[in-house]
Amino acid sequence: MAIKLHGTVGSPATFRAFAALYEKDLDVDFIPVKLGVNENKSPQFLARNPFGQVPVFEHGDLQLFESRAITKYVAEAYADKGTSLLLSRDPRKSAIQTVWMEVESQKFDPATSKLTWELFFKPLFGMTTDEAVVAEFEKKLEPVLDVYEKRLTECKYLGGDSFSLADLHHLPNTNILIGTKVKSQFDARPHVSAWASDILSRPAWAKVTSMLPK
Amino acid sequence: MAIKLHGTVGSPATFRAFAALYEKDLDVDFIPVKLGVNENKSPQFLARNPFGQVPVFEHGDLQLFESRAITKYVAEAYADKGTSLLLSRDPRKSAIQTVWMEVESQKFDPATSKLTWELFFKPLFGMTTDEAVVAEFEKKLEPVLDVYEKRLTECKYLGGDSFSLADLHHLPNTNILIGTKVKSQFDARPHVSAWASDILSRPAWAKVTSMLPK
Repeated sequence: MAIKLHGTVGSPATFRAFAALYEKDLDVDFIPVKLGVNENKSPQFLARNPFGQVPVFEHGDLQLFESRAITKYVAEAYADKGTSLLLSRDPRKSAIQTVWMEVESQKFDPATSKLTWELFFKPLFGMTTDEAVVAEFEKKLEPVLDVYEKRLTECKYLGGDSFSLADLHHLPNTNILIGTKVKSQFDARPHVSAWASDILSRPAWAKVTSMLPK
Repeated sequence: MAIKLHGTVGSPATFRAFAALYEKDLDVDFIPVKLGVNENKSPQFLARNPFGQVPVFEHGDLQLFESRAITKYVAEAYADKGTSLLLSRDPRKSAIQTVWMEVESQKFDPATSKLTWELFFKPLFGMTTDEAVVAEFEKKLEPVLDVYEKRLTECKYLGGDSFSLADLHHLPNTNILIGTKVKSQFDARPHVSAWASDILSRPAWAKVTSMLPK
């Protein structure tokens, strides 16, 4: 029984889920969802995810939405396959990884999702970037990356000494932002810059981004 | 060795952590952090949480920040004590709980944190509520609660048939909003209303809110 991922090429949340699946060397049937014609708002899709958003993970009778819930399930259910995306089964050690996963979710993502929308997706859709919003959220991102710079002097990855979900969740928005003027914020912080280059060069991530149109 | 929680009475994130600690019947040394005089920006506090926010959990040499990372650690490290806040150790079953924890984090919290700020904290601090922001985020909350209403016809709690972290994380903002005009959004949805009354009436939550000044 194959794993299916219902999603959209280029969607950060879809790519986040794919990153975990590919780190685990899993075969995935990709079911494209056409957002442009509102396939995600069809009754069939809403039965999979009542919020009408991609991605949805399907494996037999298990259906999951919310990309970070999918990556956590993949990391746990396939713990012994491919890259270990969980640093430890010891609650005290795994708690530190969880802290940095929460930081991504509560601090990094709110700022960077606004920036990717304004600087990448709006131009892509022929809409006009709101420079005031860009300035506001660039200012919110700065102190977050300052904390990351300090953290990455203490250990090679955010969750600890190995790559884990705490890093992986950053991939989609980081990949987009280093193609925008926000790259300067990464470049200004040597440990953040080295970390971003490191995680973006992972073979599983290259496999994800190879789905993008050339 | 006692568990310490560095936090602030009335802070939703501090109260979220306390809710989990009290559901587990744990003794906690509360270390008040005075936000009004920027104690949270002191070098001592920033060494505990580089983002300078409450709460911080401390137990021996383990220090954790981000309230949802604290609740997850408490739920796992004290799995056999007090209320079971994790529905299952089976990855397929626990994944459903994780989905609804992510929904709280990604959908409910962004809308309700703006609303609690505008409708409760700003008046408390002598600031003026921005009614346009209230209208914007009330509109964002509506479809989230519509999904909750449907979900709660399928099972008694968001994560499944028992109370879990997926519900607990909603307590602080729900408790504040039912004291505002947003209560009408809860009242308009019978299952959401019953669920909110149920979780707000838990003895552990009553113990948390008893910390508020009378």
